[in-house]
Amino acid sequence: MKVDNISVTVFSYKTSLVNDTDGHTHPGPEHDTDMAMLSIESDDGLKGFCFGSPQALRPYLLENYIKKVFVGEDPLRFEKLWQSLARWQRGSGGQLSDKTIAIAEMALLDLVGKKLNIPLWKLLGGFRDEVPAYGSTMCGDELKGGLSSPDDYGDFALKLIKQGYKAIKLHTWMPPVSWAPNVKMDIKACAAVREAVGEDFPLMLDANHWYSRTEAFELGKAIQELGYYWYEEPMDEHSSSSYKWLADNLDIPILGPEYAEGKFHTRAEWISNGICDIARTGTMDVGGIIPSIKITHLAEAFNMDCEIHGGGAGNLAVLGAISNARWYERGLLHPFIDYNVPPAYLHKIIDPMNNGMIRMPDLPGLGEDINFDYIKINAIKKY
Amino acid sequence: MKVDNISVTVFSYKTSLVNDTDGHTHPGPEHDTDMAMLSIESDDGLKGFCFGSPQALRPYLLENYIKKVFVGEDPLRFEKLWQSLARWQRGSGGQLSDKTIAIAEMALLDLVGKKLNIPLWKLLGGFRDEVPAYGSTMCGDELKGGLSSPDDYGDFALKLIKQGYKAIKLHTWMPPVSWAPNVKMDIKACAAVREAVGEDFPLMLDANHWYSRTEAFELGKAIQELGYYWYEEPMDEHSSSSYKWLADNLDIPILGPEYAEGKFHTRAEWISNGICDIARTGTMDVGGIIPSIKITHLAEAFNMDCEIHGGGAGNLAVLGAISNARWYERGLLHPFIDYNVPPAYLHKIIDPMNNGMIRMPDLPGLGEDINFDYIKINAIKKY
Repeated sequence: MKVDNISVTVFSYKTSLVNDTDGHTHPGPEHDTDMAMLSIESDDGLKGFCFGSPQALRPYLLENYIKKVFVGEDPLRFEKLWQSLARWQRGSGGQLSDKTIAIAEMALLDLVGKKLNIPLWKLLGGFRDEVPAYGSTMCGDELKGGLSSPDDYGDFALKLIKQGYKAIKLHTWMPPVSWAPNVKMDIKACAAVREAVGEDFPLMLDANHWYSRTEAFELGKAIQELGYYWYEEPMDEHSSSSYKWLADNLDIPILGPEYAEGKFHTRAEWISNGICDIARTGTMDVGGIIPSIKITHLAEAFNMDCEIHGGGAGNLAVLGAISNARWYERGLLHPFIDYNVPPAYLHKIIDPMNNGMIRMPDLPGLGEDINFDYIKINAIKKY
Repeated sequence: MKVDNISVTVFSYKTSLVNDTDGHTHPGPEHDTDMAMLSIESDDGLKGFCFGSPQALRPYLLENYIKKVFVGEDPLRFEKLWQSLARWQRGSGGQLSDKTIAIAEMALLDLVGKKLNIPLWKLLGGFRDEVPAYGSTMCGDELKGGLSSPDDYGDFALKLIKQGYKAIKLHTWMPPVSWAPNVKMDIKACAAVREAVGEDFPLMLDANHWYSRTEAFELGKAIQELGYYWYEEPMDEHSSSSYKWLADNLDIPILGPEYAEGKFHTRAEWISNGICDIARTGTMDVGGIIPSIKITHLAEAFNMDCEIHGGGAGNLAVLGAISNARWYERGLLHPFIDYNVPPAYLHKIIDPMNNGMIRMPDLPGLGEDINFDYIKINAIKKY
């Protein structure tokens, strides 16, 4: 079995999500946007797929890296292919990002799962067939009835509990919100949610990522007193000394790193040097499913949980495979958005929730139920 | 697919290997000995197998742990089953050893590989399809023409090079050899081998495991000057401070831990605290293939190699799956023993060598080619 054809289809679909200047999503007017689908085909006619941004799958990357490394190779040898692709990264001048590697790796693993006729969560260990979800809110905004005030957060938290979520994580206000960031307002939102949900319900906070140590400590101390379960990325993660200092000075578990480059190497430093109390990985952050599983195993060896950044098929597969992450991050959620409506290019969402639990998919590979007709009709280009 | 039958067959076979009081093997008169084969059968009629000592597979362990955890479960969910089995260990009062867990896990994975019709080295990553071997000598002895003098080691090293080995590791003299241990004699053997093989050929040393710090340092310093590639287990590994001290005071890479209990947890401490320079795992030491792969990945995150202890199908599968181990340990070797003759219960050895390279097996699962007729005819008991 060899990879013999790799292609990308860029297509258009409608969305009501808009990105702010920091890349955070908010509700907005419906508009057209582009998505890319990577397809890796083997000589026995099977295909693996993964979605990603058109920029992360642009022709230059497909031709110079993904095809060069994968074509003619046995897709089952995913560790070899991942290592080969990752090795191109340093010389790529920053072009070959962890996201591109992740998308390529997940399409490859989707093909592997289809070849072996087994869902990836099971192929990679099958620790559990369902996982509790936490509701992860969008960042704060200035939309009336949205997430514009501490009371908005409190009201929304109650709705999320009614939907069954087992825990809730707030993303509070960040630029370009006119008056953000603001530690006092973050604390008020966290307090309003604690007040709304009662003292035992698990809550987490992911606030502005560019606070100073002083601000981060003030905010952390406050949510520690509010009984929050973890505190996530309040400062630039490239200063690991700052996180070490924060972890040393607060009792609330510090979660990270999420954004910091360096894949498992960086996580190894955070975990072994007391820079975090709970580790973090996400498939798109560290180059895919395999490095994410390596990181959760690394954390396991230090008796540490490793929570998974973001939802989607790849992260769900990681959660099903491994033992030491507590929740699936479901979202991002907002009062104006119905998360349960699949995007037009999928027949259904990967993560329907029942009593707060997400069941692992039954379909082989990543388990996505793709609407190929929609993608064909709405294709903009193919290469 | 569910596990529905687990059994052990104990059978007799002839061997010319004898164990000394420290458990090390030497050539001896041919005699009968016992071996046990664990068989895990699923409801679709497939079977996974692994060999182990009858003591590690005695009825008590089969009934109280292996059957209790595995029967009725989907064998594909190996991470869940491994965690469940390992969790019984603390309460077992020392009965459920890492070896028993390893044998159970490898039989389970053999079944998984057969179900998916894929060799384990490939299922678990497929980094490489061949690996160079080092010749690993038996411990020194007092057998004339065996390994009884420095010159014996030098002569044997030349034979091993002619056979194609890419590197050689010495096990020198240990009790119950009448005059062992002896640092000066160890140094003489290492020097004789270096003299015989020339200055560039990779050599390693695994000496007596109970030297003092002073002895270990003297020996390490000497083989460092002889250009040895690693230095393995010269002291009791439960004193990790001693190994930290040794690693701090020598330039030659310190390899370990091998024997120390604690699976990936112990390796995480050694790796992250500078206690070793090259990590070590073996399937029988840490509870199987999956924890071994976790440990190699852990080492990878710290830019560290992790060499694999011992040969056999499980360790070979680990080497095929992962990137950061350099050699397959082929042995143990002795001038009086022909390693290439398979034991009577196998049709062929798992690790035939060609130009110093071991090819990964093609058969699904562990890849053992078992002589079931022999085992049936020579069965002593089955439970």
